[in-house]
Amino acid sequence: MSEDVDNGPVIALDAMGGDDAPGEIVRGAADAARDLGIRVALVGQRDVLSAELAKLSYPTNLIDVVHASEVIEMEESPALAARQKKDSSIVVGLKLVKEGRASAFVSAGNTGAVMAGATMYLKRIRGILRPTLAALLPLSGRLSVLLDVGANADCKPEYLLQFAQMASAYMQKVWKIERPKVALLNIGEEESKGSSLTQGTYELLSSSSLNFVGNIEGRDVPMGKADVIVTDGFTGNVVVKTMEGMAEFITGEMRKAIMSRPWYAAAGLVLSPALNGMRKTLDYREYGAGPLLGTNGLVFIGHGRSDALAILSSLRVAREAVQAGMLDAIREIAPADRVR
Amino acid sequence: MSEDVDNGPVIALDAMGGDDAPGEIVRGAADAARDLGIRVALVGQRDVLSAELAKLSYPTNLIDVVHASEVIEMEESPALAARQKKDSSIVVGLKLVKEGRASAFVSAGNTGAVMAGATMYLKRIRGILRPTLAALLPLSGRLSVLLDVGANADCKPEYLLQFAQMASAYMQKVWKIERPKVALLNIGEEESKGSSLTQGTYELLSSSSLNFVGNIEGRDVPMGKADVIVTDGFTGNVVVKTMEGMAEFITGEMRKAIMSRPWYAAAGLVLSPALNGMRKTLDYREYGAGPLLGTNGLVFIGHGRSDALAILSSLRVAREAVQAGMLDAIREIAPADRVR
Repeated sequence: MSEDVDNGPVIALDAMGGDDAPGEIVRGAADAARDLGIRVALVGQRDVLSAELAKLSYPTNLIDVVHASEVIEMEESPALAARQKKDSSIVVGLKLVKEGRASAFVSAGNTGAVMAGATMYLKRIRGILRPTLAALLPLSGRLSVLLDVGANADCKPEYLLQFAQMASAYMQKVWKIERPKVALLNIGEEESKGSSLTQGTYELLSSSSLNFVGNIEGRDVPMGKADVIVTDGFTGNVVVKTMEGMAEFITGEMRKAIMSRPWYAAAGLVLSPALNGMRKTLDYREYGAGPLLGTNGLVFIGHGRSDALAILSSLRVAREAVQAGMLDAIREIAPADRVR
Repeated sequence: MSEDVDNGPVIALDAMGGDDAPGEIVRGAADAARDLGIRVALVGQRDVLSAELAKLSYPTNLIDVVHASEVIEMEESPALAARQKKDSSIVVGLKLVKEGRASAFVSAGNTGAVMAGATMYLKRIRGILRPTLAALLPLSGRLSVLLDVGANADCKPEYLLQFAQMASAYMQKVWKIERPKVALLNIGEEESKGSSLTQGTYELLSSSSLNFVGNIEGRDVPMGKADVIVTDGFTGNVVVKTMEGMAEFITGEMRKAIMSRPWYAAAGLVLSPALNGMRKTLDYREYGAGPLLGTNGLVFIGHGRSDALAILSSLRVAREAVQAGMLDAIREIAPADRVR
């Protein structure tokens, strides 16, 4: 298997990363190969992966195993692990991209280690001040992308402008949204609101060529009022985790309420298809992993709880990004709309 | 009616502030007077308030109307309105506190104007660097207080230490929690995580006399893992609004799902007492308004959508704060645990 065989790009996949690795990851790869014809370089411990693959039926010419002896665990110190574990599935996968043997890397593993590794081994794109991690918010029947969600806790207005530019390119290329609406997460709708960071960013976004629609507040984040929502990595991280916590909390309270009486439980049973349908629209697994933007090579970081469906979606999104020329689109940002 | 009549402190109430003012506000005052024996100075346009009061039955000796000819609207510029509308219900109410004619002020009106007015007319407590607004999170069967939620978009570690100290005093005095657990909102659990602000704050909290339990993440905010959750006013504001948006979004999606088929609707009807019970535990109205901490005088700011129940709860909480000596407890913070 090599890039020049004319049936699509190879996507490197971290088979050892994620709460349900390697089982669910390998299953996702097999599904993507079978159902979507995606070519996968499955990175991890060869014997483990071969055993998993042997349980599944898939087009064997589309999946190659690339051996990596080490595993970076979820709780390891990211930067240290990325530096020291040179034969980990994360580092080996990133190097496949660096060497042109794969066109993108997908991991549901230690987020910090993937970010640190990508910066270490793929390097920043020239002119990009800071790589940034984006999260997909599959809410309200349309897709929004929120960034930064944790790559940069301390930010400057110039970073946020570039985050918005990179995310716009991503929404255009991968999700075919022509002029993505960009909003700034703030604590009020008026221009003058917010911190010194948001005030400076508002100015830069206003005078950029982006389709900037102004400030939005926390309340509007789940309502899908913009295609791109930009904020610093501290706020963004807290917001996505709060949303997750709230969804879990409300679902849990509902379950408790329904289980408190037998007749409630019966009514809950009648309702369960409706609630499942609702859960599906909220399901991040349909949309795949979030992109890490700004490194020399395409990297997608999935939720730690990714299952086979989430992995399949991530591989689909990664292939789309390769084929749509997302990396070149991002490379054009830095020189074209140069920040001060 | 005066403070020296021995039946409890007078609470000044902004009768013109809130989406359902004055109707719901006046009703809340009447309920609080009748059910809890709370003495209220109802501040607003005399003729309007008299007409509202005439519809209700309540102990007339417990409610006095204090005339204020102007109203600060929700969408007015806060600082400007507080400065210019000297005969607004907000400014008049704050002045009742300043002059000792009332022991606390409660408003569900323009949050920014109440904060600006409190700083202008009551002034900061000596040694307190920044007044701060706290929000009550009535989640998971216990109460947490999150602050700052919008008074200070740009913060320093020293501010956050004082926020935590003031909120601890509040939880102790008003909610009788002996050693309130204080947590720092962060993007990871380890000490080294986060922004330069959280790193500096972590250090100060660790060496303070507070019951500091470490970092918590966005996911844990709805789970009630601490009594006091401290953060900067930008993040805090975004978080409470995101929580509100998520709750509304999920409730809306659920309603849509239930209404999509007649038999779902029937099951929904059976379940409605269970879901209402759940809604009640999540109901901010039971817990009253959030305290503004750090000004010379007790001020409580309620949700714009406050109804009579929310106002009654706010008046109850305000009286409790007066009787428990909350203001003195906060005055002791600045000199005792003096920041560097």
